[in-house]
Parts: sequence; structure tokens; C-alpha cells
Amino acid sequence: MGGAAPRRVTVVGGGGFIGTNLCRRLAADGVATRAFGRSRGFPDALEGIDWIQGTLSDRDAVSRAIDGADAVVHLVSTTTPASSNADMAADVAGNVLASIGLLEECVSAGVGKVVYLSSGGTVYGVPETVPIPEAAPTDPISSYGITRLAIEKYLGLFGRLHGLDSVTLRVANCYGPYQRLRGQQGVVAAFLERGLRGEPVELWGDGETVRDYVFVEDVVQAILLAIGHAGPEKVINVGSGEGRSLNDVVASLGDALGAPLEVVRREGRAVDVPRSVLDISLAERALGWTPETSWEEGLRRTVAWARKRQA
Amino acid sequence: MGGAAPRRVTVVGGGGFIGTNLCRRLAADGVATRAFGRSRGFPDALEGIDWIQGTLSDRDAVSRAIDGADAVVHLVSTTTPASSNADMAADVAGNVLASIGLLEECVSAGVGKVVYLSSGGTVYGVPETVPIPEAAPTDPISSYGITRLAIEKYLGLFGRLHGLDSVTLRVANCYGPYQRLRGQQGVVAAFLERGLRGEPVELWGDGETVRDYVFVEDVVQAILLAIGHAGPEKVINVGSGEGRSLNDVVASLGDALGAPLEVVRREGRAVDVPRSVLDISLAERALGWTPETSWEEGLRRTVAWARKRQA
Repeated sequence: MGGAAPRRVTVVGGGGFIGTNLCRRLAADGVATRAFGRSRGFPDALEGIDWIQGTLSDRDAVSRAIDGADAVVHLVSTTTPASSNADMAADVAGNVLASIGLLEECVSAGVGKVVYLSSGGTVYGVPETVPIPEAAPTDPISSYGITRLAIEKYLGLFGRLHGLDSVTLRVANCYGPYQRLRGQQGVVAAFLERGLRGEPVELWGDGETVRDYVFVEDVVQAILLAIGHAGPEKVINVGSGEGRSLNDVVASLGDALGAPLEVVRREGRAVDVPRSVLDISLAERALGWTPETSWEEGLRRTVAWARKRQA
Repeated sequence: MGGAAPRRVTVVGGGGFIGTNLCRRLAADGVATRAFGRSRGFPDALEGIDWIQGTLSDRDAVSRAIDGADAVVHLVSTTTPASSNADMAADVAGNVLASIGLLEECVSAGVGKVVYLSSGGTVYGVPETVPIPEAAPTDPISSYGITRLAIEKYLGLFGRLHGLDSVTLRVANCYGPYQRLRGQQGVVAAFLERGLRGEPVELWGDGETVRDYVFVEDVVQAILLAIGHAGPEKVINVGSGEGRSLNDVVASLGDALGAPLEVVRREGRAVDVPRSVLDISLAERALGWTPETSWEEGLRRTVAWARKRQA
């Protein structure tokens, strides 16, 4: 709430899942939008939107991308939770070091606001209480979670040292249109892809791992509110506030597809966090945000999008 | 408490202030001690102690240094709070990346325990409550504090992923013998050097900035207890638990020197944290540790050491 609407926004990581949705919404709202990233998952979806190609570690490209922007949204991750543990040094270099460079460029360019998408699913580690409030302990069980947390702290530091205003959104498991169906992350997308091909989904363990799934357009709305946010809250959870097991996801996707998904159960691999659900009350108080898309509606729209892409 | 006494200890950063004190104590206790570091502040004080020269970023040297060690104590910092903000990328590379390398080498070498000295004065940022418990929010106002925190999180992660046991000690402002009098850190050492030369000390602002000063031999004792610690507590404050203003430090040092220090007051620079004092009750519960050296006694011994070095 509060704050003038931005006229020019650069979306760093604009070619990815959330970035594609965000750029489309910004453009539809009449905001001068520039997308920056390594590649575009769905180039046709970003038609007409200014695109600069580059990696987060490329200072020159970053500088060109944010030039003239009132607000910068930072969505880049060069790792996944699994890959981050396999090469922690690369995780630190590609994310923490590169993000420090981005923030330095934002200070130089006089950017008014940075919104960073952190990870509500990894920064807390194994939660002591569920739903998890922002003040909960942060003991990540992946390098990915540690590097998100470090970037959050650098955002706070740049605010203090250089007056760079920022909001960190700790986002839960996001799903929806423009998530690559054969990508590295997102069980909804992965299961949906199997379902559309008539293939069985694989479930490790008992399928009772619980996560918080939030529809991408609700996340986009939270980002827009965060860009205009002028309050003191700097780190805010964004999720549905509701927990769903993998078994639930499979059943609900079957409903949305009109036919139950076939399941192949595998011996459980070491499950990291059994249950992760975010407390989203601060987002309502600070941003006036609540998720508006029900789980069933979100899945229905995701399935409709996927079928249309297939056709 | 508990845990067998280590037979072989490598002190990474063994040539520095706390490292020199720790190595001398370990050697006196009959522990096979190896010191590793960039340089030795007081080479004669480490006579007879195995010394390997190298930086934390030099994997080969680190590997040789920890070979055969039951326990590794990690005392290295390549930055100070002030220098860290001037070059954050160097801070991340020299400390976080290099420490990940050290931990990987510790896993390979089968090291049983790592004790890491983090910074009780910087990881918490501006405290909400004083004295500061370990569970307090951690919002550093220097890159130095952020990198200490990230290293702490990697220690936790290596414990989870690889079974590498560790204890982090968040140490307050440490003072005592073998702190370089013209070094970058430590107001006690800096003021003492001025006093011994008969020169005035400079105080910025009103001198009411409060810190927690702990005598180095008490910190060494906490490290020895942490090496043998088998309990679940992984992050433990180590300080005096008492706050002293800079004005107090000047007055007490004058008493210890036998003549008041002359003070030149300067216009206050932006003071970062007005008051930082650690809650040390967990150290007593978890390690059976309390500081045993009074402030007056610690200063007296520091002054005696400095006079002897001068003679």
C-alpha cells in the first residue's frame, strides 16, 4: 500500500516462470517493462516486451538492463535446492556474489525499489512450528536456502548503507501457467506433464510430504503490491497459508484433468522437510494481500493453459 | 561437556590474536597442535608449534594443515567489519567460499569436530533487546556480519549432509595478550598502545557506545570446552555478559596503567550499534563455561604483557 505506481520496471529473471507472468501483467497494466535473463521459456508470451539477454553475473548487461528503471524485481536463481548442495561454491558465486553486483548497480542507477523473491520453502529449514511466521528460525538444509538468506541480508544492508529500498517476498511453492512442464522444479508442472501424456506419476515415500502451493497470478499481485510498499516490513511470506500433501496434489490434478492420475510408488528417499506451510498474516497486514485464487481454480487454469499449449 | 579430549588439533588462523593464545594453551595441555595461517603476529610465542603457512582459499595448503586432526578450530577472517562493507564481494569470496572449501576438506579428512569463531558483535546487527540471546534476530549491518552468519549456516548444513559435527561460538569483543597493538581491531589494544606511548586516545561522539569485552584466556577456555561438547547446542554466545562504555574502557585502562589516559574528543561518526552485550547463559548451561577473569584482572594482565613486550 502507498507509494506511486512505478513507470518503468526491470524484471531480472524475466524470462522464467514467475517472470513471464509478471512481465505480461506489468505490460497489461501499461508499465514500461523490460525483461532481463539468460533465456525466455516462452518467447511468444513476451512478444512486444523489451528483452535484454544476459546472466546475473554479467555486470555490463545488468547495468544496461536496469538503466532508467524505477523498480527492479529480482527473480533469478542459478541453482535448485538439489543442485546447490552439489556445488555450493557455484551457488554462492552465481547467486550471492552476482546479487551483490546487481544491488551495487541498482545504487549507481538510482533505482527506487528492489523486490526480491526469496524462498519460503527453503530459508526456514525444518520448521519448529507450522504455519511458519517470518520471525521463525532460519536454518536451511540446502545451500540454496543459505544463499537466499544471505541475499536477503545484503538487501537489508544496502538499505542501511545506501538507502536502497527493498522488500523480500519469501514465496512458497508457486505453480501456474508458463511453468515449464519438463523443468527442474515444480511438482504440479511435473505431475501435469505426466498426466497429459497419460503416463504415471512417481511418488517417493508415503506421499504425505506437505507443502504450501500458491498460484502464480497471486504471487504476481504480491510483487506489484511490494513494489508500491512503503511500510517498515521488509521480509514477507507469500503463500496460500494452506498445506497440501503430494497425495492431495495428485488427486486434485486428476480432478482438474477429468481422469485420475496413475501413481507409481517408490521407496521413500530421505525427505527433507516433512511439512512446510507459511503463515501469511503479515502479507495481509503489510501489503493488503491475500491469495485470491482457490487451489481448484488455480489447477483448472493451469490445466487449461497446458492443454492450449499442447494443441 | 563430555567427549574425549582431542589428541590432534589444527588451529586455522593460528597465527592471529586468539589463535596464538589457543595454540599456546593447547601445547601446554599436551595436545599435538598445528597452526595454520597467513602469518604469525608473534612467531616467538609459537616456538615449537607446528606451523603451516597459507591462506584459507588455498585448498592444498588447507588440506595439508588439517590432515590427521581430530578437531579443527576456524578463526580466520580476511576482513574487518569496516573493510567488508568496502568490498563485499571480496568478503564473500575470502570468507564464505573459502570456509566452504575448508569444510569440504574437513569432511574428506574425517575431522571429528569443527569449532568456528563467529562474531557476537556483528551477527545480530542492532539488537532489539540487551543482553542478546542466541535466538535474537540476525540482521547484520556489515557484510562481515552477513558472511559470519552464512558460514554458521554452512556449518549446520555440513552437519546435516555429511555428519560433520561443529560448534559456533559467537564471541564478543575479545582483548588480551598477543593482540597486535597497532592492528585493525580492538579498542583495548589500540587505546593501550596510545597510553604506553603517552599519546592521547581519540574518542568519537560521547564515548557511551557500549560493548561486551571478554578476556582472551576465557575465550580459549570456551573453545576447549566446545571441542569436547557433545550436546545439541550448536551456536553459543561467548562474552562477559557485561556492558562497558568506551569512557569506561578509557578510565579502566588508566587505572591499569597507573596514570589516566588523555582523551581527545572528536565529532561523533555514525555509530553503528549503540549497545551490544551478549546473554551468556547458554554457554554456562551447554558448556559449563563462565568467564573467570574480571575486567580489572584482564586489563592488568594485558598491560603487564604489553610492558614486557616493550621492554
